[in-house]
Amino acid sequence: MPGVGAGHPYGVHNLPYGAVSYAGAPRLVVRIGDQALDLAAACARLAPDLAPLVSEPVLNPLLAAPARTWRRLRAAVRSWLTDDSLRPVVEPLLRPIGQTHLPFAVGDYVDFYASEHHASAIGRIFRPNSPPLPENWKHLPIGYHGRSGTVVVSGTPVARPHGQRRVGDAVEVGPSLRLDIEAEVGFVLGAATRLGEPVALADAAEHVFGVCLVNDWSARDLQAWEYVPLGPFLGKSFATSVSPWVVPLDALDSARTPPPARDVPLASYLDDTALPPWGLDIALEIELNGTVVSHPPFPAMYWTAAQMLAHLTVNGASIRPGDLFASGTVSGPEPDQAGSLMELSRAGRSPIELPGGLTRSFLEDGDEVVIRGRVPAAPGRPELALGEVTGVVVASPPRGPERIQT
Amino acid sequence: MPGVGAGHPYGVHNLPYGAVSYAGAPRLVVRIGDQALDLAAACARLAPDLAPLVSEPVLNPLLAAPARTWRRLRAAVRSWLTDDSLRPVVEPLLRPIGQTHLPFAVGDYVDFYASEHHASAIGRIFRPNSPPLPENWKHLPIGYHGRSGTVVVSGTPVARPHGQRRVGDAVEVGPSLRLDIEAEVGFVLGAATRLGEPVALADAAEHVFGVCLVNDWSARDLQAWEYVPLGPFLGKSFATSVSPWVVPLDALDSARTPPPARDVPLASYLDDTALPPWGLDIALEIELNGTVVSHPPFPAMYWTAAQMLAHLTVNGASIRPGDLFASGTVSGPEPDQAGSLMELSRAGRSPIELPGGLTRSFLEDGDEVVIRGRVPAAPGRPELALGEVTGVVVASPPRGPERIQT
Repeated sequence: MPGVGAGHPYGVHNLPYGAVSYAGAPRLVVRIGDQALDLAAACARLAPDLAPLVSEPVLNPLLAAPARTWRRLRAAVRSWLTDDSLRPVVEPLLRPIGQTHLPFAVGDYVDFYASEHHASAIGRIFRPNSPPLPENWKHLPIGYHGRSGTVVVSGTPVARPHGQRRVGDAVEVGPSLRLDIEAEVGFVLGAATRLGEPVALADAAEHVFGVCLVNDWSARDLQAWEYVPLGPFLGKSFATSVSPWVVPLDALDSARTPPPARDVPLASYLDDTALPPWGLDIALEIELNGTVVSHPPFPAMYWTAAQMLAHLTVNGASIRPGDLFASGTVSGPEPDQAGSLMELSRAGRSPIELPGGLTRSFLEDGDEVVIRGRVPAAPGRPELALGEVTGVVVASPPRGPERIQT
Repeated sequence: MPGVGAGHPYGVHNLPYGAVSYAGAPRLVVRIGDQALDLAAACARLAPDLAPLVSEPVLNPLLAAPARTWRRLRAAVRSWLTDDSLRPVVEPLLRPIGQTHLPFAVGDYVDFYASEHHASAIGRIFRPNSPPLPENWKHLPIGYHGRSGTVVVSGTPVARPHGQRRVGDAVEVGPSLRLDIEAEVGFVLGAATRLGEPVALADAAEHVFGVCLVNDWSARDLQAWEYVPLGPFLGKSFATSVSPWVVPLDALDSARTPPPARDVPLASYLDDTALPPWGLDIALEIELNGTVVSHPPFPAMYWTAAQMLAHLTVNGASIRPGDLFASGTVSGPEPDQAGSLMELSRAGRSPIELPGGLTRSFLEDGDEVVIRGRVPAAPGRPELALGEVTGVVVASPPRGPERIQT
């Protein structure tokens, strides 16, 4: 395509899916360079049998199809964009990227906790008198269900959540004073399974459609008070932002990399030693009000997406097209590789320094967070962009604060 | 209607909604006595403007409408079933109850923990060295998100889940050895809110469409190993069964009763002292292989549904039509009022005795559990049935067991 060279991070090796609108309703597109190919229109002309899968404003009908259909559509789109003889047909179907929308209706949303560096750091902060990692942590990828109804697309303003926190011997109610981010990678599922049918590690690629970026906004003060014994609830459920582009798993083939060495023997359903590696060489960056404050490395994650999916379903839980699971906060071993402000500011003890003498421990109203992801270029591998997930914090309507003596 | 007297537990004071099928696709119905009124056909004849809300096999379009529309439909159905002049129109639309289906597409599923008796009993079992109630318990209704994709209708067989458990200093993988039930009451939501808009306690009835029964199947061994620090996951996500009939909230007006006295001052968003009571005089019973083993009393619940909804949304989380939240296990103060086998068998130390010298601590393959609910008759109040939620445990396909030394 004109202007989209082989080395472009949105070149034909990428081809992520999204939903965009101009004046009217959202339509599914594939991104090529800085343009969007209208999928329904392209399929109607060039692959009519696939058109019913892409005629809605969400990917779910496509996600409901088997993985071989995803691969056939991807190969077709790639051929349309590289076959010069099709230019007269394809070029009129390309438009600038309009307003982006959430490109899939979320089924269940599960959030994992797969970074050893993050889990250890949070353990030291939340449970200072216990070992940093819970004793189960290296035996299974810990996860929990989040709120799928409050998953929003990048750019959606995030209202500061309101709730209870413990302060000394009292309970206070008011806007969160410790609003944080979590930089994560998300995995969009398709090809439903039936109840009682686990997804084997070796079959994960038949159900992971693609990858996006996730900002799992977190109110640390609400979370710390509520989470014992049933886990995070209101500290997370107010909003979860995802990037607008779902990068097909197949586009990440060249980014596969072995995960870190495992310290303990794994149950056979999680043992990936004989399988192709599922680590992914994705580099994240977190920008706060225009300053990059961290570079979380996804290859440092202890658990892989395939292991997360095998664990999620080992009990017989079924999956649906549009289910989303996220990796949990991506944090590396170095201080400037943490995926949350909680870690970067050491729970507020070492505020992050920003230009102009400003500092931040947690988010203030008006703050803008941008999380970007890419597969860096390597020999024989062009850079691949995962796009970005952004959000601005807005004040919540005035209520409280209120203090209740216990 | 013929044969449905004023005292019938499915009389015109009840009129629950369901989805039934005969040979073809499910259709929405209202239950009257032991018959089902076809809603789409009745509306087409008698209230055409409401017909689009009931023409799908799920309640979600109706749930998307405001509560005043729910009330208008309920009043209309009641008049159709009581106005003798309409008999020639209505009677042909009544059929026996066919195969029942899940009558709503579940949005988010949240499970609360609102019984003080249950939470205390479980605390003593899972955390014997800590106070039985977590310190936050009387300040907020603790809850967590469950898996909406594995919510199934009553009668669906439940395959024994497979997963990890801790045994001494090893991890074992295999079918759960501590499969349990939780008898709960569920609340089906409608009238969506927008992000950032909490539902005030006083407005709860504008969003709670109706009530069902829930069996929140639980694998205690999986749960005990996995739940620190992010809460229950695979120990719950394999199946959650709900009764086929959603009883409109308005049908429970005469069942309203004050909740137990509160021991600690409540945050204003949870303070219900000046509002009509939201406790509900629902009596549950649990039958195991034909023997009633418990009588959990719903009026003993510390937190009300209105408080659960106010809490669920206080952080600005939005709700969608079809969201479901459950009360958590309903347990009363007496030993034969517990809502789980974990409590009834004291974690296996005092197995439940069944006829024929049989005993049960947890569920075995082939066991059948029936949870029934009703509002008992009282002066001026006929009995009202909530129906039942049933399930038979089936063996999971053979895998493992496997033992991993730690």
